[in-house]
Amino acid sequence: MRVYDIIRKKRDQQKLSKAEIDFFVEKYSIGEIPDYQVAALLMAIYINKMDKEETVYLTEAMMNSGEVIDLSDIDGIKVDKHSTGGVGDKTTIALAPLVAACGAPVAKMSGRGLGHTGGTLDKLEAIPGFSIEMDSKKFIDSVNEHKIAVCGQTASIAVADKKMYALRDVTATVDNISLIAASIMCKKLASGANAILLDVKTGDGAFMKTLDDSFELAKAMVDIGCGMDRETIGMITDMDEPLGFAVGNSLEVIEAIETLKGNGPKDFVLLCETLGSYMLVLAKVAKDFDEGLNMIREAITSGKALEKLRVFIENQGGDKNVVDDYTLLPQASKIIPIKSNKSGYISKIEAEEVGISAMILGAGRETKDDILDLSAGIVLEKKVGDYVNEGDILAYMHLNKEEKFEQAKERFINAYSIAEEKIEPKKLIYGVVTKDEVKKF
Amino acid sequence: MRVYDIIRKKRDQQKLSKAEIDFFVEKYSIGEIPDYQVAALLMAIYINKMDKEETVYLTEAMMNSGEVIDLSDIDGIKVDKHSTGGVGDKTTIALAPLVAACGAPVAKMSGRGLGHTGGTLDKLEAIPGFSIEMDSKKFIDSVNEHKIAVCGQTASIAVADKKMYALRDVTATVDNISLIAASIMCKKLASGANAILLDVKTGDGAFMKTLDDSFELAKAMVDIGCGMDRETIGMITDMDEPLGFAVGNSLEVIEAIETLKGNGPKDFVLLCETLGSYMLVLAKVAKDFDEGLNMIREAITSGKALEKLRVFIENQGGDKNVVDDYTLLPQASKIIPIKSNKSGYISKIEAEEVGISAMILGAGRETKDDILDLSAGIVLEKKVGDYVNEGDILAYMHLNKEEKFEQAKERFINAYSIAEEKIEPKKLIYGVVTKDEVKKF
Repeated sequence: MRVYDIIRKKRDQQKLSKAEIDFFVEKYSIGEIPDYQVAALLMAIYINKMDKEETVYLTEAMMNSGEVIDLSDIDGIKVDKHSTGGVGDKTTIALAPLVAACGAPVAKMSGRGLGHTGGTLDKLEAIPGFSIEMDSKKFIDSVNEHKIAVCGQTASIAVADKKMYALRDVTATVDNISLIAASIMCKKLASGANAILLDVKTGDGAFMKTLDDSFELAKAMVDIGCGMDRETIGMITDMDEPLGFAVGNSLEVIEAIETLKGNGPKDFVLLCETLGSYMLVLAKVAKDFDEGLNMIREAITSGKALEKLRVFIENQGGDKNVVDDYTLLPQASKIIPIKSNKSGYISKIEAEEVGISAMILGAGRETKDDILDLSAGIVLEKKVGDYVNEGDILAYMHLNKEEKFEQAKERFINAYSIAEEKIEPKKLIYGVVTKDEVKKF
Repeated sequence: MRVYDIIRKKRDQQKLSKAEIDFFVEKYSIGEIPDYQVAALLMAIYINKMDKEETVYLTEAMMNSGEVIDLSDIDGIKVDKHSTGGVGDKTTIALAPLVAACGAPVAKMSGRGLGHTGGTLDKLEAIPGFSIEMDSKKFIDSVNEHKIAVCGQTASIAVADKKMYALRDVTATVDNISLIAASIMCKKLASGANAILLDVKTGDGAFMKTLDDSFELAKAMVDIGCGMDRETIGMITDMDEPLGFAVGNSLEVIEAIETLKGNGPKDFVLLCETLGSYMLVLAKVAKDFDEGLNMIREAITSGKALEKLRVFIENQGGDKNVVDDYTLLPQASKIIPIKSNKSGYISKIEAEEVGISAMILGAGRETKDDILDLSAGIVLEKKVGDYVNEGDILAYMHLNKEEKFEQAKERFINAYSIAEEKIEPKKLIYGVVTKDEVKKF
């Protein structure tokens, strides 16, 4: 087999076989095929596309290019939740203890943030002492004992994906549904879950900006998961404005804790309830969505979820007292109110710009090597649909690096659109994609 | 300007600007853009194509990536002839002295052969003492004094083309009309001619296997030449069977000399007359094709062309006595007749297979570094349309390496198709493409 013939085939709009896809992924990951041949192939794939079967083969080959984690020593059905990333997305921090409190095992590998979106690991590390490093024995034992553990994704999984993503990034071949879906799913599948719940964000602050693209990506990923015998459900949820009020690592931890105390922002609570219910169904802990929803709500009102969070933090070396004393978390030296410069109804808050403002303040990384300021960020006071008078406070900026304030403030203010007419608030959840059905709400 | 944006533009079927094309060709030729980005771009160009204007810009940029030869010190209109390559294509050796004998200056840079097609330089070097190395002063002086000089193409012209061709070769992006046309024309244009006659070969032994592709390539190249203010004409000529009878370096030199003596094979004479007449028109030495044709024929019958060949050989250090004594050329130690194994009309001779047979005997190079046996080759006795009885001689193989004979013979025999019904011989000239017109004969 020659990679040349594989390139030519895809160039000529022919379907690649499993053997051909296995060949180029494996040979590329071990350095036996040069970047320039894979670059040509990726462009041919980008333009001529891959079908459902080819996409499954690609995902499987990328999964097999690295370590495939075995979670079979963990009791129960392991459900993984994956978000395509957004601004203010602290979901895992609230959702993992919620679901675990209901009895579903949560064995989660998470990543770090880059650009305008944050990462769960960075947020958890805002908790003093909290460690995301653990060996596989401790990981498995923790889930068996406490139903919950979150660790960093090892560098040894999906080796081909890392290499290929870096190449796609410089050859304008990122935005292809098959390539995106395979890249996400190969890591999820290598992480060993039995079932997968996908939270595909849509809108300004998301990777997928349009609803159509988001549904298409969700469908592609569900097809891959189900094609590889993992029950997979995809939700399409809003990321046109930031999720909840808090953006920034410490600030988001606080908001997640408040949510488990029953004081969460409306949109974020709804998201946790919905995702949590589906996870319980996938884990076969609840027999249907409504039963799952009741269990999730009960876990909050009873305090069981909050208690699970304490156990989770303590088990990973963190100080569980943060749950009751937020001053134990990193605190910014300055908190500056940002005021509205006009009156009216908020018609839009560009989530990406808010994420970038927070990044400028130190909450996010512009490049992989940037060091975070875990205390920095933004807490919104007003969201889309709210009425503001000129001079009302839109948000508070938390920061230590004063020299960046003006730049962050300008971007933040420009992210808001204020109109005279009242705007209908947007939906939070746009639809659900399962193996057999695409349901739009 | 970023190459990423250029890749994305072509990926999205947009037209590239002159500035964008100049940018990537220049930066690539000096090593500031990596192979993998150009590989992705080439695949996007391959699939989404370039229009006429983009193709001209690409050609110009590649021409400017290296030395551009200045022939303005040569009197008259310099017409270059370029063949896309074939089997038994000894045209330049006969045509250059023919045209020069009629008064048109011939300042030609030629290349070497690879694979099943031969190169003019290799053929000329079969003449003892003949040198294709000369400095530009000698080259220009030779053409001014004798109207004729042929030298090797310098490595310093069209640097980007060399690099890009090597990359296309391994990324399945060779067979794109714009890329092929630009690659050929950038070298022709860098060689300094005022007008260009293209001999686009079509059929089994040619780079372009179908008539449609051949016309398309001719049109693209004529558009480029005319787009850069060089009068350019494209002929589409047959390469379904070998041209003339001789295939191999010494053997083709003999056939070219015989042609100037008035004893050439019918197809080869017709090709030389046609190309020669157009060249005289392009050089404004003849007022029209018919006048050109009379001049060409007269140059043969009068012996002026043969005399010009002697002068040409002598001027480049060769032994002009070869013209009258072919034993001065390299001679094979064995000449073996190849007999037909059945009776009937020859319906096809696969030119490519004949070229490969000759290559196996030593007449051609399989890889760039192979050393030629200038005496080796094949002389056909029968061509398409001829009747043969079983046992009749189809050809003579000239060789020194006896161990390769059986392999060469097998391929050669299989190249012939013999049918019961008489076959109409194919056309030699299929059409002419000028700036304003595509004429199919």
